[in-house]
Amino acid sequence: MRVACVQFDCQFAKPQENLATALSLMENERADLYILPELFHSGYLFVDEQELHELAEPVPDGKTVQALEDFAHKNGSGIVAGIAEKSGEHFYNSAVFVDETGFRGVYRKIHLYDREKLWFAPGEAPFEIWSFRDVNLGIMICFDWIFPESMRSLALLGADLICHPSNLVLPYCQNAMVTRCLENRVFAATANRIGRDDRDVIAIDFTGQSQITGPDGSILVRASKDQPSLLVQDLPLQQARNKQINEYNQLFTDRRPDFYHLD
Amino acid sequence: MRVACVQFDCQFAKPQENLATALSLMENERADLYILPELFHSGYLFVDEQELHELAEPVPDGKTVQALEDFAHKNGSGIVAGIAEKSGEHFYNSAVFVDETGFRGVYRKIHLYDREKLWFAPGEAPFEIWSFRDVNLGIMICFDWIFPESMRSLALLGADLICHPSNLVLPYCQNAMVTRCLENRVFAATANRIGRDDRDVIAIDFTGQSQITGPDGSILVRASKDQPSLLVQDLPLQQARNKQINEYNQLFTDRRPDFYHLD
Repeated sequence: MRVACVQFDCQFAKPQENLATALSLMENERADLYILPELFHSGYLFVDEQELHELAEPVPDGKTVQALEDFAHKNGSGIVAGIAEKSGEHFYNSAVFVDETGFRGVYRKIHLYDREKLWFAPGEAPFEIWSFRDVNLGIMICFDWIFPESMRSLALLGADLICHPSNLVLPYCQNAMVTRCLENRVFAATANRIGRDDRDVIAIDFTGQSQITGPDGSILVRASKDQPSLLVQDLPLQQARNKQINEYNQLFTDRRPDFYHLD
Repeated sequence: MRVACVQFDCQFAKPQENLATALSLMENERADLYILPELFHSGYLFVDEQELHELAEPVPDGKTVQALEDFAHKNGSGIVAGIAEKSGEHFYNSAVFVDETGFRGVYRKIHLYDREKLWFAPGEAPFEIWSFRDVNLGIMICFDWIFPESMRSLALLGADLICHPSNLVLPYCQNAMVTRCLENRVFAATANRIGRDDRDVIAIDFTGQSQITGPDGSILVRASKDQPSLLVQDLPLQQARNKQINEYNQLFTDRRPDFYHLD
């Protein structure tokens, strides 16, 4: 399966421009599945709730998801994209999954990072997986990575590929994904943004280096720190089904939950 | 607290020589706590059960643990050391903890690696922690590292320092400990062996590079791949009590077990 991470500088409060930039990168090369950054249409650094009222969109009826559905339908592709979601009185830091058949589902970020807690409600549904062609996709967003329970949950549910829309600020995740993939024997595609959100009172730099990681912990491909790019890789995703690491050890059946303390 | 990892080439079936080598390295510099490799007295690569009948020792009454207790008493230190343990009809890949007061406890490896499953029984007690002076020690052995549940369990139980006797064969652990420490905000001391166990029918090379890792994922000190050494570091272990990583995120209270799938 050809998987592509879309990396670019998401401009704050310019949803139409961000959508156009993303689609333009995606049109450079056909892929079965595109992963876009977290909050790719809105930008990241909100400084008051009013901005979310203006930028967040209903899912799946908002303009951005509709445009992604159109692209997916036209190109016969799947897309996982980070969206600022408006639902009733709540805002969620979400990721939608659409494919050629239309809207497939939404994941609402379970572990909010830093000042996201001021504006977004945390996801209130368990991690889940979605079938896509002959494989299973898991979705987590950015900071979810630091909790080993996130990818462990998705992998135990049967995910072959972890789709990971991100706006990474800390320098740790790209290296950590080596261990995350190794411990779960899954593939992961981290689509990170580049550039800087500068909102006068506060500014944040993002780390780029979108990365596709293999189930043996190998970094299959990594983008630059500061250039927009479409990071494309053909992935033998079925390999993620094999959790056997030698004649005697199978990573999942060797787990011994009776002896763990995870409450 | 001054912590020291003891790295050397543990000779197969030469318990007296291995003990002498370890104590000799330990006498080079006083530490509050010494960590020795997995199966440090027996060597690693058993090829039949009879060898374990000859080399495994009762805990704490065997000669090796008694000698460690003597050292600990004389030097006012703690020691965590990997031991082939004999208990009734069973053999365990264990780690003992002794200090100046004598024998404190034993951890029996929960996740056996590869052909260890042929000879050893898996540990049948949950992960636990031991108080040592003003901090809490957790113990895991070698391959336990690949299961995030191991260090997570110890950290949630309150471990400040993970003592990690090892005979590492795969090349992944030292880098993975960066993520393990970061995700749990704990210190870890991985005491690995060097050299090669060559038993004619089978041979294994060990990776050395014993490592002490900080709660921010920094590699505080790392030994060479092939030289015996005593890797010493003064550690501000109380720092592991602070799980706050910014104004809004605390790594443990931010966990959301209701949404995980970890069965």
